[in-house]
Amino acid sequence: MRFSSPVGRERGRAVALQRRPGQLVVVGFVGAIVVGTLLLLLPVSASGEPASFMQAVFTATSAVCVTGLIVTDTPVFWSGFGQAVILVLIQIGGLGVMTVASLLGVLVTRRLDLSSRLVAAASTRTVSLGDVRRTLVRVVVIALIVEAAVALVLTVRFVVAYGESPGRALWDGVFHAVSAYNNAGFALFSTSLIDFVADPWICVPIAVATIVGGLGLPVLLEVLRNRRRPGRWSVHTKITLLMTGLLLVGGTAFFLVTEWDNAATTGTLSTADRVLASFTQAANARTAGFNSVDTGAMHTETWLGTIILMFIGAGTGGTGGGIKVTTFAVLAVVIWSELRGDPDADAFDRRISAATQRQALSVALLAVAIVVLPSLWMTALSPFQVDEILFEVTSAFTTTGLSTGITAQLAWYHQVVLCVLMFIGRLGPITLGTALVLRARRRLYRRPESAPLIG
Amino acid sequence: MRFSSPVGRERGRAVALQRRPGQLVVVGFVGAIVVGTLLLLLPVSASGEPASFMQAVFTATSAVCVTGLIVTDTPVFWSGFGQAVILVLIQIGGLGVMTVASLLGVLVTRRLDLSSRLVAAASTRTVSLGDVRRTLVRVVVIALIVEAAVALVLTVRFVVAYGESPGRALWDGVFHAVSAYNNAGFALFSTSLIDFVADPWICVPIAVATIVGGLGLPVLLEVLRNRRRPGRWSVHTKITLLMTGLLLVGGTAFFLVTEWDNAATTGTLSTADRVLASFTQAANARTAGFNSVDTGAMHTETWLGTIILMFIGAGTGGTGGGIKVTTFAVLAVVIWSELRGDPDADAFDRRISAATQRQALSVALLAVAIVVLPSLWMTALSPFQVDEILFEVTSAFTTTGLSTGITAQLAWYHQVVLCVLMFIGRLGPITLGTALVLRARRRLYRRPESAPLIG
Ligand SMILES: [K+]
Ligand SMILES: [K+]
Repeated sequence: MRFSSPVGRERGRAVALQRRPGQLVVVGFVGAIVVGTLLLLLPVSASGEPASFMQAVFTATSAVCVTGLIVTDTPVFWSGFGQAVILVLIQIGGLGVMTVASLLGVLVTRRLDLSSRLVAAASTRTVSLGDVRRTLVRVVVIALIVEAAVALVLTVRFVVAYGESPGRALWDGVFHAVSAYNNAGFALFSTSLIDFVADPWICVPIAVATIVGGLGLPVLLEVLRNRRRPGRWSVHTKITLLMTGLLLVGGTAFFLVTEWDNAATTGTLSTADRVLASFTQAANARTAGFNSVDTGAMHTETWLGTIILMFIGAGTGGTGGGIKVTTFAVLAVVIWSELRGDPDADAFDRRISAATQRQALSVALLAVAIVVLPSLWMTALSPFQVDEILFEVTSAFTTTGLSTGITAQLAWYHQVVLCVLMFIGRLGPITLGTALVLRARRRLYRRPESAPLIG
Repeated sequence: MRFSSPVGRERGRAVALQRRPGQLVVVGFVGAIVVGTLLLLLPVSASGEPASFMQAVFTATSAVCVTGLIVTDTPVFWSGFGQAVILVLIQIGGLGVMTVASLLGVLVTRRLDLSSRLVAAASTRTVSLGDVRRTLVRVVVIALIVEAAVALVLTVRFVVAYGESPGRALWDGVFHAVSAYNNAGFALFSTSLIDFVADPWICVPIAVATIVGGLGLPVLLEVLRNRRRPGRWSVHTKITLLMTGLLLVGGTAFFLVTEWDNAATTGTLSTADRVLASFTQAANARTAGFNSVDTGAMHTETWLGTIILMFIGAGTGGTGGGIKVTTFAVLAVVIWSELRGDPDADAFDRRISAATQRQALSVALLAVAIVVLPSLWMTALSPFQVDEILFEVTSAFTTTGLSTGITAQLAWYHQVVLCVLMFIGRLGPITLGTALVLRARRRLYRRPESAPLIG
C-alpha cells in the first residue's frame, strides 16, 4: 500500500508535465529531419548531381541524431550550402537533445523517486517553464564557449601548419569544433582525421570538445557551480567523471595493445604518435565518431573492443550516445554487491536506489536487444560479415558514426534500419518508451511477493 | 536498520549451511574431473593410441559439466570402457548439479528473503541433512524412471529399424537416454543424430528426455505433487513451463524459416521432416547439444539465433545450462513494467521481489561478460571467425555442446579456456560467486539513498 492523497496529487502534475516534453521531442526531431531532408534535396546543396531521396534523408537523420554515419563523401558530395545545412542540423540535434534529456532526466528521476516514496527529496526538484528557459540558455552559452575556443585553436593550426586560406581555415575550424562538441563526427576531410593522426594540435582539441560535450549538462553545471568543492558533487557527477577517466585510460591502453602490430593503422607510427592515435581513438569511440586511423583496417578484436566502448557511450544529458557511463557503473556496482552478498549496492557512500537499479537494467538489456535483433536480420539478408554488421549497427544505435565502410554499400532498406536505429539511439530507449508507452498508473494495492529461482 | 536478534541468529545458521555446499560442490566437481581424467588416460579407455592429457581432461570436463563439446570422435576414439567412464561422469555431473543447485537455490533464496525482511516466508524453508537425503533420493528416482523409459523406446527402435544386435541396441539406448536426460549431448554416432533426422522414434524421445531433465527439480517435484491442481503451482513453476513452451515453439519456427532454403541442412527434406528437424534443433539448442542437422553448415543468422537460445538455456536446478528461463522471464517482465511506468514488476498475479530482480540482472550481465571477454581474446589469437568463436564459447559456457566444428582445431590454451567456461557455466556464476566471495555481511545501518541519472 502506498501513500495516497499528497503523492497522488503531486504525481498527477508530474505526469502531465512529463508527457508533453516526451512527445515534443519526438515531433521536434522528426520535424528537423524532414526540413533537413528537404533542404538537402535542393540542387544548391550538392556540388554535382542533386542528392537522391535516400541520400538526403540518411544524411539529415545522421546529422540531427549527431551520428556521423555517411552514405556520401561529405566534402566532395555536398556544396558549401549543403555543409552549412548539415552543420545547423548537428547544432540543433546536439543542443536539443542536451536540453531535453536533462529536463526529461529530472522528470523521470522525479517520477521514480515519487514511486519509491521519497516525497521529500523529490519535491525539491520541480521543472517549470522557467527551468526550461534557464536550461536552454545555459546549454547554448556553454556550447558556444567551448566551440569557439576549439574552433580558434583549429583555425590557427589549419592556417599555420597546413597553409589553408584564413576563410577556409575558419570554416574548417568552426565545422569540426561544432561537429566535435556535439559528438557528431561529420568531417570535411574525406578520410576524417587520418591525415592528422600525428598532429596533437588537431586531435587533442577535438578530443577535448567531444569529452566535454559528452559529460552531459547535469555534470557540466554542477562542476561549474562547485568548481572548488568537489566534495559537494552529486554521486551522478562523481560516477560520470570517474568512469569517463577510466574509459579514456583503459580505451587508450586497449587500442595501443591491439593495434600495435597493425601496419595499416598505428603499426608504422612512433611510440608517442601511437599513444596519441590510441587516445584519439578511445575518445572518439565513446560516440564522437571521428577517426585518425582506418577503422576498416583494424583487427576484429579491436572492433569488438570498440563495440563495447560505443555501447557504454558517454554521459547522461550530453551530446553522446550509448547506454551511458552511469548506467554501466550502476550495473557493475549492483553485480559486485550481489556477488559479495551485500544487501545494498553502494557507490560513493550512497545507496543506489532500487528504482535506479531497475532503470539501469532495463536500459542495458533493451539496448542489447535493439542491437542484436537487427544485426541478426541484416546478417541474414546482406553479403557482409556478422562482425562488420554488428559494428555498424552498434555505431548507428549509439550514434557514434564510426564505420567499417559498409554503410554506403548497404541496401536501401538496411540504410532505413540504420536511420531508425540512429533515431531510437538518440532519443534513448527510456525517453522514447516514456513518450510512447507511459500511462499514469496508480496502484492502490500491491500484489503478494514471489521470488522465482534465478540462475 | 534491520531486525537484529532473531533474524541474526537464523541467518548465522543459514550462512554456515550455505558455505559448506558451496565449497563442497566445487571440490566435488573438480574431484570428479580429476578421477575421470585419470581413468580416461588408461590405455584400456582408448580403442587405439592412449589419450593425450589434453584429450582426457577436456573429455572428462565436458562429461562432468554435461556439455558434450568434444576433441575426439566419441564412438571411434574411446573403447567401450572409455564410453562407460564418460557415461558415469555424465550421470554424476547431471544428478550432482541437479541436487546441489536445488539445495543451493533454496539457500540463496532463503538468504535473499531474509535480507529482504520476509522472515515469515523464509523460515518455512529450512534445509537440513534430511532434506539433502530426500532431495537426492528423488533426483535419482525421477532420473532412473525417465532414462529407463527413453532407453526402452530407443533400444526397440535400434533393433527394429536399424537391425542392431540387442546388446548393441541396449548400450546405444541406455547411453543416449542418459546423455539426453542429463542434457550432455554426447553421442555414440560420429555425426550425432544426423542419420536420424527424419526418424521421430529416435528424435522425439531424446527431445522429451532433454526437456524433462532441463525443467529442473523444483518444477518436477511440484508438478508431480500437484498434478491435478495447476492452480497451486508456484510462480517459478508456471514461468518455467510457460517459457519452455514458448521457446520450443518459437525456436522451431525460427529454425524452420532460417534453414528452409539450406540444402546442406533441412532444405532437401519433406515439410513434415523439416518440422521434426527444426523441433529437434530447438529442443537441443536449449542446452542438450545433440544435432540432427549439420551445425557447421547452418547460416550465420541461424547461429546467432542458436546463440540466443543457448544463452537463455533451461530451468533452474535442472541438467541444462544458460542463464535459465526464469532469469530471462524476470528480465523481460521488469523491462516491460519499466516501460509502462508500473511501480511493481508482476508475473502470474505475484510481485517479483526486488532481490530476485537484482539477482536476475546480475546473472544475465555476468553471463554476457563471461561470453564476450574470452571471445574477444580468442578472436585475437586464432584464425577463426568471430561468429564461430562466439558460438563455441557460448556453447561451452551454457554447457550446450553444439559446435561449428572448430573445437578440436583450437590451440590447447583455447581448449583450456573452454574447459574453464564449461566449469563456470555448469556451477553457475552465482553458485560459484556464493562459494568464493560470499562473506556473512551484516549491516546495522544503511547509507543515504542516491539516484544517478540513467540512460
Ligand atoms: K557521433
Ligand atoms: K549439453
